[in-house]
Amino acid sequence: MKINQICLSVDDLPKKWYNITSDLPEPLPPPKEPETGPSRTEFLGRTMIHECLGLESSTDSWIPIPEEIRELYIQAGRPRPLYRARRLEKQLGLKKVRLYYKREDLSPTGSHKVNTALAQAYFAAKEGNTTLATETGAGQWGSALAYAARLMDLECIIFWVRTVYDWKTDRRTFMKLLDATVYASPSKETKIGRKILAENPNNPGSLGIAVSEGLEYASQHEGVVYSLGSVLNHVLIHQSIIGLETIEQFKLVDDNPDLIIGCLGGGSNFGGIALPFAGEVLQGKRECEFLAAQSEAAPNLVKGEYRYDFGDVAEQTPLLKMYTLGHRTELEPIKADGLRYHAAAPFISALRHHNMVRAVAYPADERAVFEAAKMFFQTEGWLAAPESSYAVKASIEEARKAEKAGVEKVICMNISGHGFLDIEAYREKLGIE
Amino acid sequence: MKINQICLSVDDLPKKWYNITSDLPEPLPPPKEPETGPSRTEFLGRTMIHECLGLESSTDSWIPIPEEIRELYIQAGRPRPLYRARRLEKQLGLKKVRLYYKREDLSPTGSHKVNTALAQAYFAAKEGNTTLATETGAGQWGSALAYAARLMDLECIIFWVRTVYDWKTDRRTFMKLLDATVYASPSKETKIGRKILAENPNNPGSLGIAVSEGLEYASQHEGVVYSLGSVLNHVLIHQSIIGLETIEQFKLVDDNPDLIIGCLGGGSNFGGIALPFAGEVLQGKRECEFLAAQSEAAPNLVKGEYRYDFGDVAEQTPLLKMYTLGHRTELEPIKADGLRYHAAAPFISALRHHNMVRAVAYPADERAVFEAAKMFFQTEGWLAAPESSYAVKASIEEARKAEKAGVEKVICMNISGHGFLDIEAYREKLGIE
Repeated sequence: MKINQICLSVDDLPKKWYNITSDLPEPLPPPKEPETGPSRTEFLGRTMIHECLGLESSTDSWIPIPEEIRELYIQAGRPRPLYRARRLEKQLGLKKVRLYYKREDLSPTGSHKVNTALAQAYFAAKEGNTTLATETGAGQWGSALAYAARLMDLECIIFWVRTVYDWKTDRRTFMKLLDATVYASPSKETKIGRKILAENPNNPGSLGIAVSEGLEYASQHEGVVYSLGSVLNHVLIHQSIIGLETIEQFKLVDDNPDLIIGCLGGGSNFGGIALPFAGEVLQGKRECEFLAAQSEAAPNLVKGEYRYDFGDVAEQTPLLKMYTLGHRTELEPIKADGLRYHAAAPFISALRHHNMVRAVAYPADERAVFEAAKMFFQTEGWLAAPESSYAVKASIEEARKAEKAGVEKVICMNISGHGFLDIEAYREKLGIE
Repeated sequence: MKINQICLSVDDLPKKWYNITSDLPEPLPPPKEPETGPSRTEFLGRTMIHECLGLESSTDSWIPIPEEIRELYIQAGRPRPLYRARRLEKQLGLKKVRLYYKREDLSPTGSHKVNTALAQAYFAAKEGNTTLATETGAGQWGSALAYAARLMDLECIIFWVRTVYDWKTDRRTFMKLLDATVYASPSKETKIGRKILAENPNNPGSLGIAVSEGLEYASQHEGVVYSLGSVLNHVLIHQSIIGLETIEQFKLVDDNPDLIIGCLGGGSNFGGIALPFAGEVLQGKRECEFLAAQSEAAPNLVKGEYRYDFGDVAEQTPLLKMYTLGHRTELEPIKADGLRYHAAAPFISALRHHNMVRAVAYPADERAVFEAAKMFFQTEGWLAAPESSYAVKASIEEARKAEKAGVEKVICMNISGHGFLDIEAYREKLGIE
């Protein structure tokens, strides 16, 4: 009998997160203050969760996961299965290549974002805060934080880019069902929002504006902290739960990946699955390659420069050393909105700089990635999120390449989310009636 | 540490389905031919899957599950977890009552329907057929059969009630992504469809018409068999996988349910979780009660008569002894469309007749059931399908009643599907902006 689902028991849920900092070939370039304006570090120190800020500069390799967070992870369905993609292998006629995928799509909110949202909500509550504030673009992060806040009995304030807020009615309802307060951004709730609306009441909003509103809101209200869902070190450390589980799952089937593939916008799901494996590569314990699947709309690892840049359009973060397209670059709209970010997380950028991460970018018309996701759906039976489709596309291409070259290869991809709330994108991109 | 997720390993997936026939207090009243018209049994014998028809009259208590179907079940994510609803218990202030729920919402198509769809597709292919034909109303059954057909490399022809076809664009895309051919019914593909359209080109369709079209299509085309998703004995036997897993999961936590609750339209998810427990009750091995949660729009167990009736509006099935509201009764539209059926499955009706199944019906405005589902979402974190919301509502009511009476009680409900494709219903019923 061919069993394609590889499960860990709840007792095997990892007890520690992994932090790659000390294993990097050279020290991670520290955040820097920009030459003008107020101290960004001091500002973030006042508006963010202390435990998370502490992780930003931690050199501990292993961070204990508090028991309460492990309980929340289990409540949210962790550990998540790893699948052997035998049906997809058959469709592709693979003899030398084995394919696997990790099931982050089983998340209650539809993506891997809950892994850090739950941790942040727990620490925010523990530090005596009553409210989480954040921004969201595509809506995956807003959904995850709304969920985590509700489970920890916290309020949640979400500033959501107005153009997306207006048309993603189902995601909006999803957040509101969890009692989140959701504002179309720019909003009248902040000074900067009111200023922008005074200039143009029809301003469509942007992620930069939404970040600014969230930060201002957090800094001006007692008990409110600001929460970020990608890029920063603490986020990728929380997400390491994905890769740590995957390592244990490969042991169960006595196999080893030669290539880990994830889609990459800011880098949180990619880092989540890749960093624990990369750590073992750096320690000389295994050989493994890493491939980031991107959009030509935001090819930060493919075409970006490795330099200090802001994390946000509004220049409210410290400068971080990242592969970046420039924080003010306008990025073309795509359905995989979660991949539209100008820079890659410092951890990932450092690995890229040491030639440990390859990257590929697919055309912004997205037809090819949705075709790949359709093949995945038809063979494996799971509808992937638009973002995850990029990882599927890259995995199929790499598998075909290795097969053609007659090379034995084990490829593992991360299915970062499900596509139940993105079926319209499939319809449009594949021209289905 | 409080672990709320109770998992079986894939090795523990049941190897046999359970058939309650021989354990019933008296023999199941057999299907009957109506007094007029052609033989329905002979007609179904020509249009349905032989293996499934064989199960209809089987008296074997245990039906081996072919290894290939067990592989498909595992591919589809079985075994599914059972959860202890500790967070909901806390919200309700329960001290004496323990709540559990089974996670059929983790299905690839969003409902428990895949359990029988995969079995039927497997047997249809084994018997040399190339194509599955069916009808669908809400779309859950059509989605599940499209999925199963795709995994078994079969064609799938779906006749979908036109009014629903027109507005459920995401479900339609979902089926088409799986290469199903989906016709709005009445269609031009069948004689009966053309006749109805000639009389009125704008006929909105009905489940009865769609059944007639599917059956005609199957009877007129080589290699096409007709597939049904509820009511019949073979469907409930396939669904017994739900309850069989649940029995094993309760053993793992050394607990025992006093009351099993499921929503009920035709009875397939209710039967799936309840029948294996009911069998043990009939064998004197355990004590357990059963409660079906219905809508006042289709309260077949609450207000129906136990008598012979057709399974469909078009009178193409044999007569079955069921609690029925009458096969031509017009049922009020509700969001939980899967509960809109005039009669309860023969197995369930027989148990009801022997006072083993209680039933409750909630108002057709559905406000109360969506409020219950919202509480479930906010505490447990999972968005239930509209149909499953009825089981949640009934479980909350029963828990409160037992708690008030100071009675220790263990309640287990079935979450038959997820609500990601039904968020509009939540928005409308709860008045969310």
